[in-house]
Amino acid sequence: MVETERRKIALTGIKPSGEPHLGNFVGAIRPALELARTAEFESRYFIADQHALTGTPAAGDIAAWTRSVAATWIAAGLDTERTVFYKQSDVPETFELTWILSCVTGKGLMNRAHAYKAARDRNVAAGEDPDAGVNMGLYEYPVLMAADILIMESDLVPVGRDQLQHVEIAADVAGSFNHRYGEGYRLRIPEAVVPPETTGHTLPGLDGRKMSKSYDNYIPLFLPAPKLKKLVRRIPTDSTPVEAPKDPDSSAVFQILAQFAEPDVVADTRKRLEAGGVGWGDLKNQLADVLETQLGPLRARYEELVAPGSELDAILARGGEIAREQAARTLRGVRRAVGVEV
Amino acid sequence: MVETERRKIALTGIKPSGEPHLGNFVGAIRPALELARTAEFESRYFIADQHALTGTPAAGDIAAWTRSVAATWIAAGLDTERTVFYKQSDVPETFELTWILSCVTGKGLMNRAHAYKAARDRNVAAGEDPDAGVNMGLYEYPVLMAADILIMESDLVPVGRDQLQHVEIAADVAGSFNHRYGEGYRLRIPEAVVPPETTGHTLPGLDGRKMSKSYDNYIPLFLPAPKLKKLVRRIPTDSTPVEAPKDPDSSAVFQILAQFAEPDVVADTRKRLEAGGVGWGDLKNQLADVLETQLGPLRARYEELVAPGSELDAILARGGEIAREQAARTLRGVRRAVGVEV
Repeated sequence: MVETERRKIALTGIKPSGEPHLGNFVGAIRPALELARTAEFESRYFIADQHALTGTPAAGDIAAWTRSVAATWIAAGLDTERTVFYKQSDVPETFELTWILSCVTGKGLMNRAHAYKAARDRNVAAGEDPDAGVNMGLYEYPVLMAADILIMESDLVPVGRDQLQHVEIAADVAGSFNHRYGEGYRLRIPEAVVPPETTGHTLPGLDGRKMSKSYDNYIPLFLPAPKLKKLVRRIPTDSTPVEAPKDPDSSAVFQILAQFAEPDVVADTRKRLEAGGVGWGDLKNQLADVLETQLGPLRARYEELVAPGSELDAILARGGEIAREQAARTLRGVRRAVGVEV
Repeated sequence: MVETERRKIALTGIKPSGEPHLGNFVGAIRPALELARTAEFESRYFIADQHALTGTPAAGDIAAWTRSVAATWIAAGLDTERTVFYKQSDVPETFELTWILSCVTGKGLMNRAHAYKAARDRNVAAGEDPDAGVNMGLYEYPVLMAADILIMESDLVPVGRDQLQHVEIAADVAGSFNHRYGEGYRLRIPEAVVPPETTGHTLPGLDGRKMSKSYDNYIPLFLPAPKLKKLVRRIPTDSTPVEAPKDPDSSAVFQILAQFAEPDVVADTRKRLEAGGVGWGDLKNQLADVLETQLGPLRARYEELVAPGSELDAILARGGEIAREQAARTLRGVRRAVGVEV
């Protein structure tokens, strides 16, 4: 089959999980947006709101998180004219495909999936039943993820190393389907794209460890200026006196600054720290100013978008429609191939 | 909450699996139709075409089986004006509900499901990997079945003893959902109805064992008269001479006759056999005549319905619409309760 003119499709899933922080921005959002801007393929992003159910969140949480993460990505610069941006739950065809794929997916494949294995190992180590506290959603979600990927005819899936296995499973499942029903319809086999280690950065958090929601040491991305300043003051520093030269690379404050300030400002600050005469308090004030300059306009946009009744609903609805059209096409082919539709 | 005027809903799933035979008719179809005619509740029947995918049938098989089983039930007397009759695949909301339910279903519950346990035990006995040849569809289909039941707000599920566990799982899963998200929406807890042992009958097959597709000893329900006669002649008999008295209850031919002839004819035949003077050949001729009288008109109706372009499509489409309306209502409540819809 000769394919002409079809641009490759790259698909990225975003799991909604509450308030985004500086670490998410630097480590995930910014590099992904950079990729979407520069890549020669068509980027699609979806918010995996249904996937978030595996954590059995409280009622209402997912709605709020989904809205927040969608507003964050658009405020951060996602161009929704160029990029199809949608909610997983707006593409219900995905769930029917999940079922159909589950019938060509060996259970053994799921037994080897990292997230389930980790839960199992923890249970065994604790002397519990291996499946204690494991819900079926957690166990089978690699099949859901395969459906997310395959229903969009994705060619490429940019993922971190920890997610590589899921793309391999999706490719495996597509292969099984094609082997059994490929005469009627062939699913496109996706490939993972693992960005070079240097693409994303990790930031130190308020306790010096990696900034992360699970350590509760994070600085929210869209804090109002006074609160932001207050949190920046809590970043740990050593007791080097103001006059003494300081090592920028061992300073959490400088590491965060380096990710947000312009390169010449970063270089200049580095020199001034190494020369001595700059106190940690001064550096923190500078960081708070830089963050406010960089993030202030994004925050304003975020606040607009996240407010009920904003244009966000229309943006997601339009993305959902485009995605659903593609999904319906794929599902129709699959349904006919297996014989539940004539 | 006071409920007025709501008739209880009874839901029955029918798995499509090729040509129906006399045993299916006597053991399942006829008692189910009797129940639908006499019961004070609203009966709904669906053809579980998507469920049949767990057996990874060849492409096309499901479409043919589904058509055949639908035509069979209507030809056998299912009143599709009184009974909602639909295909599982016409209610795609079921699959989204399956996913949502899987997130409140403990994996341990699936480990204990009979079908999976049986496959596992067979593998272990054969020295294989416990999950060898087990696909995820087979493993998780109790969750799909729970979704089938719960999405229709079913009160009652008439099932054989072997299916009792599935209704218990559905009730369990509904309970877990209500416990977690019941403030937003409560799923109706279904109850199994196991018919008394005497309701359904098993028929002997062409080799004397229970008539069953897996023994390949069956008489298809809608064979043309000459072929039917030919198969009836193959039912095993002993070598008692014509003149000798015969025991009707140890005769496979008589047992089948007893299920299809009028009671007075059955009683008369019993007497004549016990008196002697009736040969097996005579009895077989009588059975072939009875079957043709009873099934001939049904076969004619079946042939009409199963033909491409028949009214069957419209009947199933209408049933699907009614079912889908109910399913959409349930799913909307569930989506709002968990937070993927506002």
